[in-house]
Amino acid sequence: MSENSVDFSQVRAQFPILKVVENGQPLVYLDSGATSQKPLRVIEALDTYYRQENANVHRGVYGLSERATEKYEGARETVKQFLNAKSTKEIVFVRGTTEAINLVAHSWVSENLTEGDEVIVTEMEHHSNIVPWQLLRDKLGIRLTVLRMNQKGEVCLNALKGLVSEKTKFVSVTHMSNALGTINPVKEMVEIAHSVGAKIMIDGAQATPHMTVDVQDLDCDFYALSGHKMYGPTGIGVLYAKEDLLEVMPPYQGGGDMIYSVTFDKTEYNVLPYKFEAGTPHISGAIGLAAAMDFLNEVGLDNIAQHEAGLLAYATEQLSQIEGLRIIGEADKKGGVVSFVIEGVHPHDMATLMDQDGIAVRASHHCAMPVMQHFNIPATIRASFGVYNNFEDIDRLITSINEAKEMLV
Amino acid sequence: MSENSVDFSQVRAQFPILKVVENGQPLVYLDSGATSQKPLRVIEALDTYYRQENANVHRGVYGLSERATEKYEGARETVKQFLNAKSTKEIVFVRGTTEAINLVAHSWVSENLTEGDEVIVTEMEHHSNIVPWQLLRDKLGIRLTVLRMNQKGEVCLNALKGLVSEKTKFVSVTHMSNALGTINPVKEMVEIAHSVGAKIMIDGAQATPHMTVDVQDLDCDFYALSGHKMYGPTGIGVLYAKEDLLEVMPPYQGGGDMIYSVTFDKTEYNVLPYKFEAGTPHISGAIGLAAAMDFLNEVGLDNIAQHEAGLLAYATEQLSQIEGLRIIGEADKKGGVVSFVIEGVHPHDMATLMDQDGIAVRASHHCAMPVMQHFNIPATIRASFGVYNNFEDIDRLITSINEAKEMLV
Repeated sequence: MSENSVDFSQVRAQFPILKVVENGQPLVYLDSGATSQKPLRVIEALDTYYRQENANVHRGVYGLSERATEKYEGARETVKQFLNAKSTKEIVFVRGTTEAINLVAHSWVSENLTEGDEVIVTEMEHHSNIVPWQLLRDKLGIRLTVLRMNQKGEVCLNALKGLVSEKTKFVSVTHMSNALGTINPVKEMVEIAHSVGAKIMIDGAQATPHMTVDVQDLDCDFYALSGHKMYGPTGIGVLYAKEDLLEVMPPYQGGGDMIYSVTFDKTEYNVLPYKFEAGTPHISGAIGLAAAMDFLNEVGLDNIAQHEAGLLAYATEQLSQIEGLRIIGEADKKGGVVSFVIEGVHPHDMATLMDQDGIAVRASHHCAMPVMQHFNIPATIRASFGVYNNFEDIDRLITSINEAKEMLV
Repeated sequence: MSENSVDFSQVRAQFPILKVVENGQPLVYLDSGATSQKPLRVIEALDTYYRQENANVHRGVYGLSERATEKYEGARETVKQFLNAKSTKEIVFVRGTTEAINLVAHSWVSENLTEGDEVIVTEMEHHSNIVPWQLLRDKLGIRLTVLRMNQKGEVCLNALKGLVSEKTKFVSVTHMSNALGTINPVKEMVEIAHSVGAKIMIDGAQATPHMTVDVQDLDCDFYALSGHKMYGPTGIGVLYAKEDLLEVMPPYQGGGDMIYSVTFDKTEYNVLPYKFEAGTPHISGAIGLAAAMDFLNEVGLDNIAQHEAGLLAYATEQLSQIEGLRIIGEADKKGGVVSFVIEGVHPHDMATLMDQDGIAVRASHHCAMPVMQHFNIPATIRASFGVYNNFEDIDRLITSINEAKEMLV
């Protein structure tokens, strides 16, 4: 399906919140990097679940519970296909990317690394892909090594090749930077990690709403995503992991559903993926996430990537014409995120004024303080695009910046 | 408000799922111990959130995000009042009771107990309150001691007094047994734990939908609950903990929102309760849970307790008249749960036949295998009541059991 065959104004019409009036004007939502808005089919999937289908899963012998289980496990199948995993055993439902990374840190890394071993992350990571490794560093005495980026906000594959060694046991990198928009060459990074026998995790929180992800093609060991960033509900996410790794990993949390049998002396764990899903899962969240993936599949991720590339190019061009505005993050390969600063203007003041025009952008360190440190700035203003944004949104963004600038500079 | 002032048929009418036809008959839902159904105000709270209010929290400077933050933090205030906690700093949003127990096991217990120290649980615990301590036992070499129960399914306070010693550092007990319905004398158990300087956690997953809980009156150190069992959404729960404990506990998961500042060298954690909420939280879940608590407050927990006590008494009386039926769990203080076995009938076969009559009961070990071991049975049939059940539900339960028994015995 080519972009031409998708009417993105019809796609936009599926998002009720975009009809909200914000300070007297229709909302221009340019903060999808923080969280995405939800299409009707996701909202309705939740509504239908609670009105007609709600029951606990895996345990009931009555029809309602069996149907809830089918829906929940059907959602796992949808995720498996979305990521092109080999098996639903490789799909673990978690709260979000943050929990997925913590699970891997606690279970695989904590078990397999000892003092002196090394974890490598990039300089552009979100705090969620830094703090778990710092916690382990302090506990285990491992090293945390940083792959630096250049002034465009890109990492260099040769630098990674130079960094890895036999001491490198784990690499964890973002697929797409939330603060800069940089899309990393993760497939090549997987090869480099594997060349020294290291395992590699990819933080896909930003990438999954914007591009096709094929975990078998990438050959990554772990991949994490957050439902709420890809048009799904809050409180749900996915950890993909290769089956042989999950098989030998100790459980993360203990509780119901993750065990096969319990006595006070001895407990036998359940099969995959249930070993990693302790307690009643976020059933409606998984079902809502599957509806979001159906939505993404229907619009087509290639069409979405093309649509957002158009928005990014237009926004970049328009922003570049504003005097004193500097774009932060100019990687050759970028997703639909544009971060910028304006000389003499504090990002928070600018964003506050833009809110008066109904424009939602983020002024923040974007939970990526090392990125801010790299560019020696406290914060940026970030406009991040979703499937619903259009050229008019960008025109209103530009007008609002110019007006706010008049008042602030 | 007395029970007389509450029309429970009006309460029941607020649950759309109870109009579902199951195998040609209106659903009789008697599995609230597994998960509760949701009233309209909860379903609508989620719908409104996603249609009008969705944004990420704590970070945005625009109106939509500020309103989402107010709603999310407003939900925390609702929980604080619901449990009568001293401060919202003591209210941590988690996925559910299982995660709350794992958080405490990982953060407080793991930090404060060493080899030879003791954790005490009761024999009637759910697996979620057994497995986390077994994981720690295997890791730290601590002892896990079991407070046994009698044939009625009750623990004895004097036995607990005899069990605790200076080695006892932690006690974790359920407020109400999911398999038996037993309501434990938790206030007295808190006193006994504290008498030897131990901390105590109460698993409130079953209790919170049925009775008023006042954590200050109980003086417990930790209290956990699950939203989905108390008419709220899936994927959300609460850990209550005394502020001075949370203050010194290390974080559980690392990520966004739980930090104040990050460099690769050093990270400074956020203030309470955010130190324990890494990553984008389950915003809609918290808002839905607050709506469920508003619902419970409106009906009145004392009225609910009275209503369900009436159902329990009637069900117990009716069931007792069935030949060969044995009630499992006959504690003097019981909540709205009745577990039973029937001579010569496998619980699963019985429940499967009852499903044909539109009756949803559970036939299972109820994730409490040690309880089954105690009574030397593989499983029970469990009918568990909610605010929506009525005497007609119990009449249909009894009729269905009698008919199924005809076929099976």
